[in-house]
Amino acid sequence: MQLVIGNHNYSSWSLRAWLLLRQFGLDFETVRIALFTPGAAEQIKRYNPAGKVPVLLDNGLIIWDSLSICEYISEQHLDGKGWPADPALRAHARSSCAEMHTGFMALRHAMPMNCRRTVENVVISAEVQQDIDRILQLWSGALNLSASEQFLYGEFSIADAFYAPVVYRLTGYGVSLPEQLQAYCDRVLALPACQEWLKLAQQENEVIEEEEV
Amino acid sequence: MQLVIGNHNYSSWSLRAWLLLRQFGLDFETVRIALFTPGAAEQIKRYNPAGKVPVLLDNGLIIWDSLSICEYISEQHLDGKGWPADPALRAHARSSCAEMHTGFMALRHAMPMNCRRTVENVVISAEVQQDIDRILQLWSGALNLSASEQFLYGEFSIADAFYAPVVYRLTGYGVSLPEQLQAYCDRVLALPACQEWLKLAQQENEVIEEEEV
Ligand SMILES: N[C@@H](CCC(=O)N[C@@H](CS)C(=O)NCC(=O)O)C(=O)O
Ligand SMILES: N[C@@H](CCC(=O)N[C@@H](CS)C(=O)NCC(=O)O)C(=O)O
Repeated sequence: MQLVIGNHNYSSWSLRAWLLLRQFGLDFETVRIALFTPGAAEQIKRYNPAGKVPVLLDNGLIIWDSLSICEYISEQHLDGKGWPADPALRAHARSSCAEMHTGFMALRHAMPMNCRRTVENVVISAEVQQDIDRILQLWSGALNLSASEQFLYGEFSIADAFYAPVVYRLTGYGVSLPEQLQAYCDRVLALPACQEWLKLAQQENEVIEEEEV
Repeated sequence: MQLVIGNHNYSSWSLRAWLLLRQFGLDFETVRIALFTPGAAEQIKRYNPAGKVPVLLDNGLIIWDSLSICEYISEQHLDGKGWPADPALRAHARSSCAEMHTGFMALRHAMPMNCRRTVENVVISAEVQQDIDRILQLWSGALNLSASEQFLYGEFSIADAFYAPVVYRLTGYGVSLPEQLQAYCDRVLALPACQEWLKLAQQENEVIEEEEV
């Protein structure tokens, strides 16, 4: 199995798929393409005509897009365990991921993922604050629904992989969080897989100017 | 089962979920909220704190977002038949839907879904053309991969529900298509469920100015 990803430091969509694979201990090889360097776009297109990372290569199949990669991995390699077993929690978790997949544009633009950097005193616009408020509401909702003191829906699931880039954002840009949610972020950041990702990001030296706010 | 939707004429995300339910003959009730009318936002929030339609209410659960609704329906009510049975086709179909879920922003802005209207001679920018080209590539890829003379992956699936709003867009804005893909669009539009949706759109009289390009 091969996972084609972008820069560890910046590529939030790559992190989601990578984290799921790593956290569940699956065997795979990483192909890293430094985004926006000469030839990168062509290189990505050799794997994925949509021109985006992540892309998963498995068993002769090409699976593009972080969400469908996670669904595929859960179904083919984890016997469904990528999602919570309880149907109510599973429906909630899938809704949370789908909302992340299409939404939070203001947050995504104002606070691009930048794992190795911490920024203090970021000015937060009303739109960004609205996104943050909704994410915190969603996280508390998930933690309370599943009575979890661990991850969003109890055990680590695709939902945590999907929100890991937000964890990096909120903590990296110094957004202060209620205690329950700060503790959740701390647990995510302490995962060995997240520590490994951060180290890989710190070893990179490419700088993508427009992601440096 | 209740499905909360927006205007039939404009609400592309609503159409996806509705079409899946209707095409598979499931029993449900529609709650229509005319978007952007006074009180609409508050009404939606009573169902979904994320403030968006569609929302599915089933068995005491609230499922928000068109993609997670489709996954839920397939899993809980269709015994998985919302997706193609073959794992390779299923992975492809899920990737196609996820790409639609996050992408094609230029097309979505320039050609908002407007079922009851047909517009001639639309000027197509380079970005919109790029989106159209990618969609056509994706559709041909799916039809060829599944050797289908019917829907994208053979039998009607979530992927067709997901791309139905694009079918309305391309045909409504008069984009000329290769024969194989025009035939695909014609088959989608001829579905009794799509005919019914169109009739419901034609019966509506609300006009959302910013969707009228
Ligand atoms: N919906 C896609 C989005 C992927 C995406 O936008 N990836 C970015 C990097 S994080 C990318 O490949 N950018 C390169 C480019 O646009 O040239 C997914 O979830 O995989
Ligand atoms: N990702 C969501 C997006 C839903 C969405 O944007 N819905 C629009 C109508 S098509 C909406 O509810 N707009 C009302 C508003 O933003 O107030 C989904 O797939 O369900």
